[in-house]
Amino acid sequence: MSESFFKDTAKIPFEGADSNNPLAFRHYDATQMVLGKSMAEHLRFAVCYWHSFNSPGADIFGAGTYDRPWLTEKSLLQARTKMSGAFEFMEKLGVPYFCFHDRDVAPEGDTLKESNENLDQMIGMMEEEMARTGIKLLWGTADLFNHPRFAAGAATNPDPQVFAYAAAQVKHVLEITHRLGGANYVLWGGREGYDSLLHTDLKRETAQLGRFMQLVVEHKHKIGFTGTILIEPKPHEPTKHQYDYDVAAVYAFLQKFDLQDEIKLNVEANHATLAGHSFQHEIATATANGLLGSIDINRGDPQNGWDTDQFANSVEEATLILLEILKAGGLGNGGFNFDAKIRRQSIARDDLFHAHIGSMDVAAQGLLNAARIIEDGHLQELLDARYAGWQGDLGEQMLAGDLSLQQISDLVHSQNLNPEPVSGRQEMLENLLNRYIY
Amino acid sequence: MSESFFKDTAKIPFEGADSNNPLAFRHYDATQMVLGKSMAEHLRFAVCYWHSFNSPGADIFGAGTYDRPWLTEKSLLQARTKMSGAFEFMEKLGVPYFCFHDRDVAPEGDTLKESNENLDQMIGMMEEEMARTGIKLLWGTADLFNHPRFAAGAATNPDPQVFAYAAAQVKHVLEITHRLGGANYVLWGGREGYDSLLHTDLKRETAQLGRFMQLVVEHKHKIGFTGTILIEPKPHEPTKHQYDYDVAAVYAFLQKFDLQDEIKLNVEANHATLAGHSFQHEIATATANGLLGSIDINRGDPQNGWDTDQFANSVEEATLILLEILKAGGLGNGGFNFDAKIRRQSIARDDLFHAHIGSMDVAAQGLLNAARIIEDGHLQELLDARYAGWQGDLGEQMLAGDLSLQQISDLVHSQNLNPEPVSGRQEMLENLLNRYIY
Amino acid sequence: MSESFFKDTAKIPFEGADSNNPLAFRHYDATQMVLGKSMAEHLRFAVCYWHSFNSPGADIFGAGTYDRPWLTEKSLLQARTKMSGAFEFMEKLGVPYFCFHDRDVAPEGDTLKESNENLDQMIGMMEEEMARTGIKLLWGTADLFNHPRFAAGAATNPDPQVFAYAAAQVKHVLEITHRLGGANYVLWGGREGYDSLLHTDLKRETAQLGRFMQLVVEHKHKIGFTGTILIEPKPHEPTKHQYDYDVAAVYAFLQKFDLQDEIKLNVEANHATLAGHSFQHEIATATANGLLGSIDINRGDPQNGWDTDQFANSVEEATLILLEILKAGGLGNGGFNFDAKIRRQSIARDDLFHAHIGSMDVAAQGLLNAARIIEDGHLQELLDARYAGWQGDLGEQMLAGDLSLQQISDLVHSQNLNPEPVSGRQEMLENLLNRYIY
Amino acid sequence: MSESFFKDTAKIPFEGADSNNPLAFRHYDATQMVLGKSMAEHLRFAVCYWHSFNSPGADIFGAGTYDRPWLTEKSLLQARTKMSGAFEFMEKLGVPYFCFHDRDVAPEGDTLKESNENLDQMIGMMEEEMARTGIKLLWGTADLFNHPRFAAGAATNPDPQVFAYAAAQVKHVLEITHRLGGANYVLWGGREGYDSLLHTDLKRETAQLGRFMQLVVEHKHKIGFTGTILIEPKPHEPTKHQYDYDVAAVYAFLQKFDLQDEIKLNVEANHATLAGHSFQHEIATATANGLLGSIDINRGDPQNGWDTDQFANSVEEATLILLEILKAGGLGNGGFNFDAKIRRQSIARDDLFHAHIGSMDVAAQGLLNAARIIEDGHLQELLDARYAGWQGDLGEQMLAGDLSLQQISDLVHSQNLNPEPVSGRQEMLENLLNRYIY
Repeated sequence: MSESFFKDTAKIPFEGADSNNPLAFRHYDATQMVLGKSMAEHLRFAVCYWHSFNSPGADIFGAGTYDRPWLTEKSLLQARTKMSGAFEFMEKLGVPYFCFHDRDVAPEGDTLKESNENLDQMIGMMEEEMARTGIKLLWGTADLFNHPRFAAGAATNPDPQVFAYAAAQVKHVLEITHRLGGANYVLWGGREGYDSLLHTDLKRETAQLGRFMQLVVEHKHKIGFTGTILIEPKPHEPTKHQYDYDVAAVYAFLQKFDLQDEIKLNVEANHATLAGHSFQHEIATATANGLLGSIDINRGDPQNGWDTDQFANSVEEATLILLEILKAGGLGNGGFNFDAKIRRQSIARDDLFHAHIGSMDVAAQGLLNAARIIEDGHLQELLDARYAGWQGDLGEQMLAGDLSLQQISDLVHSQNLNPEPVSGRQEMLENLLNRYIY
Repeated sequence: MSESFFKDTAKIPFEGADSNNPLAFRHYDATQMVLGKSMAEHLRFAVCYWHSFNSPGADIFGAGTYDRPWLTEKSLLQARTKMSGAFEFMEKLGVPYFCFHDRDVAPEGDTLKESNENLDQMIGMMEEEMARTGIKLLWGTADLFNHPRFAAGAATNPDPQVFAYAAAQVKHVLEITHRLGGANYVLWGGREGYDSLLHTDLKRETAQLGRFMQLVVEHKHKIGFTGTILIEPKPHEPTKHQYDYDVAAVYAFLQKFDLQDEIKLNVEANHATLAGHSFQHEIATATANGLLGSIDINRGDPQNGWDTDQFANSVEEATLILLEILKAGGLGNGGFNFDAKIRRQSIARDDLFHAHIGSMDVAAQGLLNAARIIEDGHLQELLDARYAGWQGDLGEQMLAGDLSLQQISDLVHSQNLNPEPVSGRQEMLENLLNRYIY
Repeated sequence: MSESFFKDTAKIPFEGADSNNPLAFRHYDATQMVLGKSMAEHLRFAVCYWHSFNSPGADIFGAGTYDRPWLTEKSLLQARTKMSGAFEFMEKLGVPYFCFHDRDVAPEGDTLKESNENLDQMIGMMEEEMARTGIKLLWGTADLFNHPRFAAGAATNPDPQVFAYAAAQVKHVLEITHRLGGANYVLWGGREGYDSLLHTDLKRETAQLGRFMQLVVEHKHKIGFTGTILIEPKPHEPTKHQYDYDVAAVYAFLQKFDLQDEIKLNVEANHATLAGHSFQHEIATATANGLLGSIDINRGDPQNGWDTDQFANSVEEATLILLEILKAGGLGNGGFNFDAKIRRQSIARDDLFHAHIGSMDVAAQGLLNAARIIEDGHLQELLDARYAGWQGDLGEQMLAGDLSLQQISDLVHSQNLNPEPVSGRQEMLENLLNRYIY
Repeated sequence: MSESFFKDTAKIPFEGADSNNPLAFRHYDATQMVLGKSMAEHLRFAVCYWHSFNSPGADIFGAGTYDRPWLTEKSLLQARTKMSGAFEFMEKLGVPYFCFHDRDVAPEGDTLKESNENLDQMIGMMEEEMARTGIKLLWGTADLFNHPRFAAGAATNPDPQVFAYAAAQVKHVLEITHRLGGANYVLWGGREGYDSLLHTDLKRETAQLGRFMQLVVEHKHKIGFTGTILIEPKPHEPTKHQYDYDVAAVYAFLQKFDLQDEIKLNVEANHATLAGHSFQHEIATATANGLLGSIDINRGDPQNGWDTDQFANSVEEATLILLEILKAGGLGNGGFNFDAKIRRQSIARDDLFHAHIGSMDVAAQGLLNAARIIEDGHLQELLDARYAGWQGDLGEQMLAGDLSLQQISDLVHSQNLNPEPVSGRQEMLENLLNRYIY
């Protein structure tokens, strides 16, 4: 920590919408009150360790490009240099949270024991940095996808020893997350899926996955961890198909294994669109079923079919998702984690700041727009009017189960019901929405 | 019925693989025994009324092209002509089943009462034709999507009167299906979804849909219908998003509304691929969860993002799905319904025969291949070997819940487990599969 | 014209950004000067006849829903009622242009002669309406896709008589367009493609298409039409594959048939995204090759794989495309044609106004943003700096062809060139862009 | 070469369709005569160096899994070990050709000079191995995408020094390819595209690319290389958009820069499908325009939007593309290069054999099927009949340009032409095709 890695960038100030300073916030004012809470409390931003500090800037066709001197060798010394840089960055950016995988912060050893020892050493430093800066842990997670042992899955591996290994690894990271006061623990099933159904017993593998999750939930209660266990849906990549495909697939799974009251979802923008859904759809589906836990904020490219993990830059999308979140009462334990990577060409040291600043401003604008929509109430009034019929006797009785199919049919015939369509007013509502966004 | 519509085509014979007669089966021999059942019993083919007899051959950019004289006016007279043609076709093709919507077989009246009366008249003729030909009903269904009243959904409509109207309509068709001895009743939620979340209360609408399905199930039991209630997943089109998106989404929904033991799925090839899944995946997911009810057999175009509903022509795909079906014990009440339409240019009267013959032969080849794969047992042996570890103590105890996360972790450390990856053998298995297909 | 169809809506005023009137423009002020031209001159909005007045609101699963009384029968009387409604709408909306297909404005007769006579009658009325209102024709086009004769293509039909018929039809509409003072003539190859390569001679069909286009160009010059001939790329739908897939495919085709100086492109947003490109990409590709003619403004749904033809509502996208257009010197003869349809549920008579107003405001905001980007010059400076090296000797000589591969190689070795990457600054630029948009 | 790397696998024999030996060919018999040429001469198989010997089996989420001991360090010693293994593999597999990038066979040095020296040393060994085994070079190519200097493109880089560096690199590899008697030289523009239009001058960059290609063509003639220069289209990945998107985009480009007689295309299956086309479409488009040079044989996953580069296993697709190739007179200089990688889980040493054997057998079956289709002539007869009208006077005169639009129109009116549609017979043809495939 002798030398500052981001020494050329000062703490990012809030300067307001008229500022021309690209290294200042124009909309994100952490302390500004919105609907009774500060922006910081609403958005609970977290920097992710992996993309921001662990990635070399490689892609499948090319070598790393980033200026990350600590990646030249895997050692505890370099892990310390990296952690210094990471906390310096987060402190200068002014985010309240971060997220990490075990293998992001400490090198894997030759045995799990050695890996755990490496990790424990780095967690010591992490506690000091957290205490020094006041930055907290949004969630921890175990890397169950990078090492060749997980090539055929972790919990869903055909080899039960891999299941056991993964379980032991999760146990350790869950306990560390607890020790660090983490708000959540995330299970990302990066390899829990299949490359080919030809060599896959789908029923057996999902049963394994169900048992794995139950084990984690049981242990959480045993150790008294009060954070939320989260699953992050993703449809595919690297596998052909992931079992936690989208919100609906995870919801089906949680119910099957009686976990729907124990586990919530970490919903990611780019995973939503890879699954063929809008981000708003996935969040609305999660909130409608009481499953929204947290957000991985980023964006995909509408023309590219892989996880581009770009920094979110659409105020329109931010407005729509924050509207869903505010209507559902906010994120609770969750937050906005930047599961996003700067482009491979973004090799200037301050590009990491530009990326986060832009995305935080976009989320702040989305929050402000969504709050205005709620305060104005006009959109909600139109929505209420659309469904007003269901407040009447017929609607209430039918929905409550007071009328049988026979009775409803009798009623249709006796009253000669012949309902006329009314306008859905979609274009008018799109125009109304645009008033808040642009 | 005075004149035969398909008079230029005789009953389609089975002539064997060496036949050059394009109007003969080369592989589908209804009576051939495969794994202890006849091909006809395995495949239970059904012709669908809508594409084959009700469609004019129009598309969104063009007028109808088909030679369907009964479509020139909507009348009971024309409905009778159509039904004669339909049963003539099915009889000549030699299929044991058919499927229909209420509005396919009788014109809609000015009121539901009038519509029901029209329908009842045509059902009388249908019973006669069924008796005459021995052709049975695979499933009936109500058209809850074509009329403007359903533009904003049937069960999920913002207007409860539309819900009631749809309920009354389903009641009637469910009772007709019962009367006709139908093996199943299908709910296709053609408009149960949304065009925009801006004017949609997703939580309320899905609650409406849940109640609707419960009503249908309750009525089924009340009237003593022993067939299966089926839901047909589809991701979108005509709506932006359908609530019954894919097998997983329907499974989540069924569990939420406690319907998982009452309703099964009618899985369609083209709907699977529109949802971003392989057809095999959707069937495997359904069978893994005990949800497979029936099949809508067709295919989409891998480059086109709408429901092209082409006739299935891939023996490779047929083999894979029949393998899943045979492994799950067959289709039970279900069947293979040709939810497929001939191309808009296919305007010769016998094109409808060519299309069905080709697809039936493809399914027959798939059945034969799948049966050989099962009889040989080699693929299953390789699969069993892959998961053999789970038959050992560690695997069984972990899956049974006999070991806690702590115990598993202790075991990993005490035994210093460090599992090595083994080859997934995907390419070898793909080669093995090809031996059966080509 | 005795009664006003849109009688409940008055002429749409411009009221400014603070207006709460949903039937007023908030950003589109026709007379506002932007970079030396009025907004009206920049954007040259056109209403399209087909979606707005000819569509019943049907989709592939459902009957028409719109309130379009003139569609109940195909007659010249109804065509007149429709035209009155159309011009009333356009006048109240305040657009300077419209577009039409021959079959939109007059019913098809039993022979081409009769069709032409019907059309000629309606063109008479059209001239009167144009004179009365001052509304002009952006482009005319012939409907070569709706009638069954075109099921296998028009110019690319296997039957040369269909080619001839289409040629005769285009001749008449081209002459009408000329007579009406149309600014352009559009060729949309709605069926110029294939459903299956099995029955298609791709090489022959594209040769037919090339000859067809040459015929049109030759006739244009013969009759002295000075408007631009435009081709509208579309990748597929209704066919599996259209020959005019995207801008690049059309450019290849135009060069092959030596038409690149005679024909330009009418680029549509939704066709771009169906082809796997961003709208901006297609426009940038067209302008880079001197091929941009006009714009069909609409939007698709990023999750739906068919031509949803929704009204554009993204200021972000409007900004990006107007930036490309302004940098290329504007649209010239072209304009923004609303090839967009209101949703099937949008059945209130004024929904058509809401839809157009919203989209016109969005384009106006895009224009204002793009103009500010150009006036500020900052984005262009950054771009110029990025390529500055090409202004040096090495860059200029290499690009001019003054150095051979051998000479360049010698130079690399003698100077021991080893160029270092510099940051692409993508996130910083995205933030900069957002300053103008939000 | 002291020790054999693939020592557990013997030379792969041809054993015929009834063989159960997974390490034998069942259909590919190199010497079998088909339409007057041996299978080997038709298919001209090539093993690719990069996927088969240079890839560690990593993906974007995980470390390498393959057993490739020579990848542990970058040295000439390891490069020699690798080359021994590569030629051992190719010899045992029995392929006549291979392909390579410069950086596949020799480590990059600190300067281009050093890189070239490394390469030259390995080319010496390559010549020996080629002489020893008789295996020839299908094509060579330069890696212009892996090193960070190419992050913003090679020929299209904003820095002209990178253009120069790439030119020097290509010069050397082109000369090596010439020296080795390579049949072709491939330009793959792995980074010739953009990540964002915000920082891209598309017009300038494509001009740079055009000049680059002209330089290569000029040098080819200068040194007397008689092989073909090939461009390999790809739509995106790693970039958002590649300039050589698909066959049509490359054709447009070649014409613009007057290269259409100098450069042909290397068409890849997975790149075709990523671009939204069928593989057959891309090949048919290339042959229709005289542009087909060679084939990169592999397959994508229809549900995954990235370049999965799997080994081809569909006889159906192989039949269709070989039909196009045979109809166009064969591949000439080109061949079938296996640009395919075994799955990350395929870590057994013989998996590489299984993958190639399966794909070679599939191509052989496709060749046999396509030859039978051609010999039977039935499909061609049906196609000829479909277009027969164009052999008549009207068709010939219109296509030859002997009739103007006016004359054609007059003829339509005077003869009162009103062509009737005929059936396109798609389903019948699909059935016919299946007779040959299954």
